[in-house]
This record gives sequence, C-alpha cells and structure tokens, in this order.
Amino acid sequence: MNNIFSKSRVEAFSDGIFAIIITLLVLEIKVPHISEHHSAQNLSYALSGLLPKFIGWLISFFTVAVIWVNHHRIFKQIKQIDQGIFWLNALLLLWTSFIPFPTAVLGDYPGNIASIVLYGAVMSLMALSFFLLRLYLIRKKGLLEESTDLMSFRTGTMYSLLFGPVAYLTGVGLGFIHPYFAFGIFLGIPLYFVFSQSRTSSSVNH
Amino acid sequence: MNNIFSKSRVEAFSDGIFAIIITLLVLEIKVPHISEHHSAQNLSYALSGLLPKFIGWLISFFTVAVIWVNHHRIFKQIKQIDQGIFWLNALLLLWTSFIPFPTAVLGDYPGNIASIVLYGAVMSLMALSFFLLRLYLIRKKGLLEESTDLMSFRTGTMYSLLFGPVAYLTGVGLGFIHPYFAFGIFLGIPLYFVFSQSRTSSSVNH
Amino acid sequence: MNNIFSKSRVEAFSDGIFAIIITLLVLEIKVPHISEHHSAQNLSYALSGLLPKFIGWLISFFTVAVIWVNHHRIFKQIKQIDQGIFWLNALLLLWTSFIPFPTAVLGDYPGNIASIVLYGAVMSLMALSFFLLRLYLIRKKGLLEESTDLMSFRTGTMYSLLFGPVAYLTGVGLGFIHPYFAFGIFLGIPLYFVFSQSRTSSSVNH
Amino acid sequence: MNNIFSKSRVEAFSDGIFAIIITLLVLEIKVPHISEHHSAQNLSYALSGLLPKFIGWLISFFTVAVIWVNHHRIFKQIKQIDQGIFWLNALLLLWTSFIPFPTAVLGDYPGNIASIVLYGAVMSLMALSFFLLRLYLIRKKGLLEESTDLMSFRTGTMYSLLFGPVAYLTGVGLGFIHPYFAFGIFLGIPLYFVFSQSRTSSSVNH
Repeated sequence: MNNIFSKSRVEAFSDGIFAIIITLLVLEIKVPHISEHHSAQNLSYALSGLLPKFIGWLISFFTVAVIWVNHHRIFKQIKQIDQGIFWLNALLLLWTSFIPFPTAVLGDYPGNIASIVLYGAVMSLMALSFFLLRLYLIRKKGLLEESTDLMSFRTGTMYSLLFGPVAYLTGVGLGFIHPYFAFGIFLGIPLYFVFSQSRTSSSVNH
Repeated sequence: MNNIFSKSRVEAFSDGIFAIIITLLVLEIKVPHISEHHSAQNLSYALSGLLPKFIGWLISFFTVAVIWVNHHRIFKQIKQIDQGIFWLNALLLLWTSFIPFPTAVLGDYPGNIASIVLYGAVMSLMALSFFLLRLYLIRKKGLLEESTDLMSFRTGTMYSLLFGPVAYLTGVGLGFIHPYFAFGIFLGIPLYFVFSQSRTSSSVNH
Repeated sequence: MNNIFSKSRVEAFSDGIFAIIITLLVLEIKVPHISEHHSAQNLSYALSGLLPKFIGWLISFFTVAVIWVNHHRIFKQIKQIDQGIFWLNALLLLWTSFIPFPTAVLGDYPGNIASIVLYGAVMSLMALSFFLLRLYLIRKKGLLEESTDLMSFRTGTMYSLLFGPVAYLTGVGLGFIHPYFAFGIFLGIPLYFVFSQSRTSSSVNH
Repeated sequence: MNNIFSKSRVEAFSDGIFAIIITLLVLEIKVPHISEHHSAQNLSYALSGLLPKFIGWLISFFTVAVIWVNHHRIFKQIKQIDQGIFWLNALLLLWTSFIPFPTAVLGDYPGNIASIVLYGAVMSLMALSFFLLRLYLIRKKGLLEESTDLMSFRTGTMYSLLFGPVAYLTGVGLGFIHPYFAFGIFLGIPLYFVFSQSRTSSSVNH
C-alpha cells in the first residue's frame, strides 16, 4: 500500500508543472529597448526583430499542449500508479520542464545548428520518456484499466516512437541542410497531433 | 472514448495557467535603482515614475480575472469536452498566456502607438477565441448541458463579439487620436464586465 | 444560477495564486557576483550582505502563509460564492499578488522610509480586503454556512481590522522613528497569527 | 472545528508549491551570449560551460521530486490536519521554496566551499522539517489514520533523520576535502530514495 500513489495528486502535480512551463515560455521574450520612446516605426521594427522568438514560443506552446494531451490520454487508461510509473512520469516531467531553456537558445540563435541539435535532443528525450512509460505499462498490464484496448495501446506505443524520437532526430538531421527544414519538422510534429486527433474526433461524432 | 477529455483536468490545467499569468504580471515591475539609498524623496520619485507600469498591471490583472469569469461561465454550461473544445480552449490559453508581453511593452512605451496596437491586437485575438469557442458550442449543441438556455447563450455569443474584438479594435483606433482614449477603453472593457455582472447578481438576489 | 460560482474552482484559482506568490518571493534574491570565484570568504561576505533580503523574504513568506490560513478559515464558512464575494476575493488576490514588489523594494532599500510606507500601505490594502469580504458576508448572512457562529464571525471581523490595516499603519508610523520598529511590527503580525492559533488549537485538543 | 484544515486544500497548496519550484529551477540557467551568432562551435562550447548548472539543476529536480514523494507518503497516513501539522508543513515548504537560491549559488560557484555549506545547510533544514513533522505525529497519534503501522512509522522517522540532516551535513563535511564528494552525496541522497523505493515496489508486485 505504501508503494501506490494517489492518482489525483500525481495528475495535479503534473498538471501544475505543465501549466507553469506553458506560461513561463513567454517570459523568455524580453521587451526590446529603443532610444526614441515615441517612435512607432522604431518599436515596430524592434518587435519584428523578435519574430524568431515568437515562432519558437509558438512551437513550444503547442508542443507542451500536445504533451498534456498525450499525458491525459495515457493516464486515463492507468488504474494504479506504482513507483515505476511515478518515476518514468518524473523523467517525462524532467525533460518537459527543461523545454524553456532550449526554446530560449533556439530563439536567440535560430540559424545555429548547435541550438537545433539541443532542441531536437531535449525533445527526443522527452518523447522517449513517453515511449518508456508506455513500454512499462505493456509489461505490467495489471496497472492498466480493464477497458483498455491492449492492441491499440501497443500500436500507439509504436507510433509514439515514430512520431516522437525518430521524427525529432530526423528534424535535427534535416537541420544540417537548412534550419528551416528543422523548424518545419519541429512545428509539424505537434500540429500533426492536433489535426490527426481533431479528424478522428469529428468522424466519431458524426 | 479516447476523444473525450476529463473536464476537471482541463479546468485545473486552465486555472493553473490563469493563476500563473495573473501572478507573473507583477514581475514585469522592476525595483527602481537610485544612487542615494536613504533618500525617501528619490525613492518616492522613482516609484512614481513606475505609474504607467502600475496602470498596465492593474488593467491586465482585471482583464485576466474577467477572462477567468467568462471561462468559468462557459465551462459551467459544457457537459463534455471533445477535441474541438480542447483546442479552441488551448487557443484561448495561448493568447492569454501571451498577455504579460504586450503588458510589459505597454508599460515601457505607454505613449507609443505601436505598443497600443500590439496590446489591442493580442486582446482581440484572445477575445476572438472566446467567440470561436461559443460558436463551436452553438454548432455542437450536444456538448452543452441540457439546462443551458440556448437563446441567451446565442445572445451572449453576439455580446462576446461586440464587447470583445470589436471593443478592443475600437480602442486601438481611438488610440491614434490620443493614447489616453485607448487606455480608457482597455480598462473600461474589464470594468464593464465586473460591474454589469455585479448588478445582475444583486437584482437576482433581492 | 449564472451568478453563482463553483466554490472548488474559486478555491483552486486562489490556492494557485497563493502558491505562486509564496514561491516567486525567493526569485527576488539574486546570486551575488564576486570576482574571485574560489574565495569562500568573499562569497560568505557577499551572502551575508543579502541579510535584509532574507529577512524581507521570511516576513513575506509567513505573511502569505497567514493570508492562506485566513482565506481558508473564511471560505470554510462560505456556503455559496456570488459576484460580490468573487470580486472582493479578486481584490484580495490583487493586493496579495502585488506583495513581491514591495518586498523587493524593502529588500533593496531597508533603511528607506519610502519603502516602509509602500510595504505597509500594500499590506494594509490587502488586510482591508479581508475586512471588506467579512463585512459583505455579515450583510449577506445567507451566503454563510448554517453552522457559522455569527457572534464569533463578527468578533473576528473586528479583530481583522485591528490586527490588519490598523496594525500595519501603526508599523508604518513607528518606522518614522526607526526602521527596526516597522520590521518588528511587520514580522510580528504574521507571527501573532501563527502562535495565537497554535495556542487555541492546543487547548482544544487537550 | 475552526482549527482543523481541509486536507485536500493543504495538499493542493503544497502540490502547487512543489510544481512551481521544480519548474523555476530551469530559469536559473541563462542562455549564453556569444558574439559569432552562427558559430556552432562557439555555441557548443558556451553550452558545455553550463555543465555545473545542468548538474545542479538535475540534483535539485530529483531532490524536489523525492520531497514530493515523502510528502505524499506522510500525508497519506494523516487523518486530520491541525494547526501543528499545518505550520510544520509550512516550515517544510519554506525551506523547499528556498531551494532555487542555493541551487543557483552552487551552479555559479561549484568549487566554492561556501556555496556547498549553504546548499547542505538549506537541505538539512528542509529534511529536519520532515523529521519534526513525523515527531509531532508520533506524539499526536490521534491525527494518524487508524491503518498506520506505528512501528514502521517510528522506524521511518529515524531513517528520515539519518538519510536527511545527518547525510547532508556529512556531505558538507566531505566537501571540505573535495567538492566532488559533496556533489556525490547531494545527488546520492535523492537517488537512494528513488532506487530503494523502486526495489521495494518491485518485490511487492512480484
């Protein structure tokens, strides 16, 4: 009994962390300093110079939102949280809570391959934590809700490897050709989740 | 089943984000630096120079509080959260979590029309997300609580367009005449909500 | 029905804000910069120079903890949250969320009477919000739990005026004689609450 | 009745604080500034210079995660929260919310014994709060759940003194020989908890 966690407290703790990360991301965008305080042209120009930061923020916002959705989806199928699930979840939270740093580095050095590698690596590790959590649940089926469709859970696990670490590392690889390819993949991964899920949802509700 | 979200977790996640944003706003107000550490006159003068920042903080605080109230009001009428509601809610959270940035820009450059345009644009997009969420719910009535008065929900939706994006863009337009007009509208919008609601509340409780 | 708030969401929103403020306070204490990186003497000396900041942080931490306790105590007696309670609670959250700023100013200028006036004024306004919330509840008894002892609620309301705004303004007044008197009162107010409550608790449990 | 706290609100408040602290830790890691924006070599070199900060962040992340686990474990056995438990819990939150500061100091001055003493002292005080909370519960058995095994609770209390304050102070002592010894102990303490618990969990589930 001492080794079983209260599901609602683990969810509340995780939700708190996701909510804070998604909100902290905007703090990395600093107000620009211009000398002529009343020049609308200078301020507009300075703000437009922050475009890479806005894009980085947008990508990370949707990425964390998708992490939340995936987290929600997995935890809905979990009946009981043991030490293994707790610490694999903590690993996921570790990499997720780190996202503001590579996001800030990418915003400051958008054209630098080192910042693309860093961003892709952290995201791969975050996505890998999801895969490990799912793998653990497949091994310990007793922790899953009885209603869980094990077949589709296994398929989802394979997909989470493909559209997770594999996709992010592909983005890093393409970034060596041109940074824009990497940005496209990094933004494409969360968008893929958003739209693939909405489509399924619509077809179900028809 | 995989496409339905736990309402309590979505609410907790949203509440977390609202709570963090409303609290982060004050971090944009930095302690002033004065050379004579013990001069009360110098410190008072330096603090009074932060007045535009205090006003910006006050406006944003009440704006986020009103967003919370509107969010609470809509979600009380929602029975089930599907993918569509989730992502329109995420869009609302996206713009809301961005508020600290235009607030900080407005606090640093209160007389600059570019900062007024930025603030009004972000607020319009935030308010537009509310309108889109309501529009989606009108189209998918099955997601609303049975007790919902559809007639008044439709009226509320039209009002949310008028006292939301339309009002904010009007504020931006008047800001071209004088910044004070824009500030008046930006502060007036949340205050309108606070007092119009309190009045209704009083009349009901009589 | 549209004018009644979900008590659990208002509590969760308020708890989120209290938790964030109490945690943000430490961010105002910056790591000191010393040139000789390995000199333990220099670092110890630089850290000891942060003593006024540590004391300011400690005072504000216990103050927010006491605010939480008082908030918890009042809300336990509230049956239903109407618009009036919500906005008086928002007023309390407004001043509470502002606390990190006067705390930082006090930490930077501990001997400056202007920073003592600012701190005392913000705390008085915060404490006044508690008083107004209690006054509103006395006027609208129907919103209180049936089990509430109205006599002791009225006494508590008078005490909240005395040990709140009156005590803080007294602290400000004594600060004109010497800053230490103000610090003593500012720290004494939350400590009074901590120990007076613990004592009552002990006598009840005997 | 006025002296009994709602367990769910105290847990939510504590969870909020833990979630924020664990997330704020990453904010102490600042994006490095390099002059040649496109040099991958320069950026990689600058990032690798942040290694002590990454290690400090990692240690503090796992430490706060372990604090959460211990907090969860103790609170699962608590039936009723009185003033004593509340304020001993507040003491624990006080030291825990302070962790970002010694972590930042350790990250900036990893080789300076003063920063090791500061880190170890704060952690000892945090761990001591756990011990005091447990001691209080042993004295006031009536506040514990009936199902609590008092014998193992007493053993756990002694262990919490040994693997808490005693271990941290030992780490500080060894740090006078070489900083690496201190780092080893500081990282070893949370890792010990992670693995000792996982092992117990596995043996139970076999």
